[in-house]
Amino acid sequence: MIQKLIEKIQKTKAPICVGLDPMLSYIPEPVVKKAFAEYGETLEGAAEAVWQFNKEIIDCTWDLIPAVKPQIAMYEQFGIPGLVSYKRTVDYCKSKGLIVIGDAKRGDIGSTSAAYATAHLGHVKVGSQSLAGFDTDFLTVNPYLGTDGVKPFVDVCNQEDKGIFVLVKTSNPSSGEFQDRLIDGRPLYEWVGQKVAEWGSASMDGTYSNVGAVVGATYPEMSRVLRKQMPNTYFLVPGYGAQGGTAQDLRYCFNEDGLGAIVNSSRGIIAAYKKAPYDKFGPEHFGEASRQAVIDMAADIGSVL
Amino acid sequence: MIQKLIEKIQKTKAPICVGLDPMLSYIPEPVVKKAFAEYGETLEGAAEAVWQFNKEIIDCTWDLIPAVKPQIAMYEQFGIPGLVSYKRTVDYCKSKGLIVIGDAKRGDIGSTSAAYATAHLGHVKVGSQSLAGFDTDFLTVNPYLGTDGVKPFVDVCNQEDKGIFVLVKTSNPSSGEFQDRLIDGRPLYEWVGQKVAEWGSASMDGTYSNVGAVVGATYPEMSRVLRKQMPNTYFLVPGYGAQGGTAQDLRYCFNEDGLGAIVNSSRGIIAAYKKAPYDKFGPEHFGEASRQAVIDMAADIGSVL
Repeated sequence: MIQKLIEKIQKTKAPICVGLDPMLSYIPEPVVKKAFAEYGETLEGAAEAVWQFNKEIIDCTWDLIPAVKPQIAMYEQFGIPGLVSYKRTVDYCKSKGLIVIGDAKRGDIGSTSAAYATAHLGHVKVGSQSLAGFDTDFLTVNPYLGTDGVKPFVDVCNQEDKGIFVLVKTSNPSSGEFQDRLIDGRPLYEWVGQKVAEWGSASMDGTYSNVGAVVGATYPEMSRVLRKQMPNTYFLVPGYGAQGGTAQDLRYCFNEDGLGAIVNSSRGIIAAYKKAPYDKFGPEHFGEASRQAVIDMAADIGSVL
Repeated sequence: MIQKLIEKIQKTKAPICVGLDPMLSYIPEPVVKKAFAEYGETLEGAAEAVWQFNKEIIDCTWDLIPAVKPQIAMYEQFGIPGLVSYKRTVDYCKSKGLIVIGDAKRGDIGSTSAAYATAHLGHVKVGSQSLAGFDTDFLTVNPYLGTDGVKPFVDVCNQEDKGIFVLVKTSNPSSGEFQDRLIDGRPLYEWVGQKVAEWGSASMDGTYSNVGAVVGATYPEMSRVLRKQMPNTYFLVPGYGAQGGTAQDLRYCFNEDGLGAIVNSSRGIIAAYKKAPYDKFGPEHFGEASRQAVIDMAADIGSVL
């Protein structure tokens, strides 16, 4: 699966993914009003607004990008109807040929992680049938429970040619509280990084492994160390744009072959129309604003590669 | 909310919760066959079997127990229909007066954790309405991202009188891989425990905080240390029974007041009918087998208090 992602990155010349993390406050009023007119001020109404918003953004950007990363929490907050919109978004993106990275940060004890892996990457046996729940291409995974909490995801990746990105160093301000603490002279995130490389060593797909790492754009010095430590691990890089990471900060996430990282932007793309220079498009052309923001982001990142 | 849980524990004299973690392989064949006859070998059919199985177990045990802990992964594996069964299970348990601990181990950067907190514990604003997605009483939370990943859950707990249990020391075999690593001479789980106590200090509800901790039954010496370190923190204790934890191992999870911990059992209760001494009930009386297993578990734990 990582090879498929790399091919799409090379084709689009854009190592970026669009974070489909819709908040109701991002969605232009006419879209929300139309959804409420049809379904009322209900979870169904909110979920419909989310779906229509996503669809327009996908329709305006799919040819420029290799991948999307829907954050499932933004859908879960609208309960079952929200999760129906999540699935609808995943399916629609796949129909457009996009790689879908489900950002769910799941992780639990072995038997439970196996159920999550089945839910998001695999197939569940129901009688004589083998059925998919959400069927994304990649999933983000939390490593706090150690090898037996991550291994079931790796197993499903190997069976189904899917991938995961394991949290190593996250982009948020307090990520260092535990992740940066020194253990035998090295920060926890390096120990996690080492395990991620080990977990991924039997899941190679070309030069890179299907087991990747989440490494935040907001800590460039740390990404430099991690890049050297795990040369065959693809990085999913959050934190660019709204969270403060710049293109310069991203340099170290890439290998010398220009590969090795895919950079996510959520608000900066999907809510582009709300702020300069994209507010000139107006709320009625929010999809076009997102398209221009994607073009600019690809150029910005291209400038440091 | 923790006070409400304590009152129910005192009333039932059973500091236990039933883990509603249904696998299709646990469900007696007639229940599965009936569901497939109605919905086919589909995700809907599997979800219906899960719901009917849960309902029978709840009907047979609700008067003996304070709480249930559905593991959402077991529902997520059946996609949207599975999550509909999760919600149906949560709602039904609440209608029976049970406290519901959603075992979801969510955790992310601040804005995303806020969406998860809304989804599972709070209400989302949709136009002029304030609507609940899943509306469980407690949620389990992963601390790997630090304070700004946990704080949004605490905020919703404070607003809505709900609670969380943050992963401190988990029950699985490889939990020590990161959690036991020494930082300045103390294992990571103690540092996390200290933060949990801090996060919970402004969320007191009687003697205990609405911010609790997950502490596995399988590491009794560690629970002894944690119990002393966080006297006002309630422990949710997995790992009893099928995972190997015994009543003796649980002693240290409790305070001298006999409070401070609620012990979960999943397979040992819900699949009780599959093994001695409960197999005598037969698959057709699986709910009665679960009832007897609950009675025996409460007595077993009572023996060490």
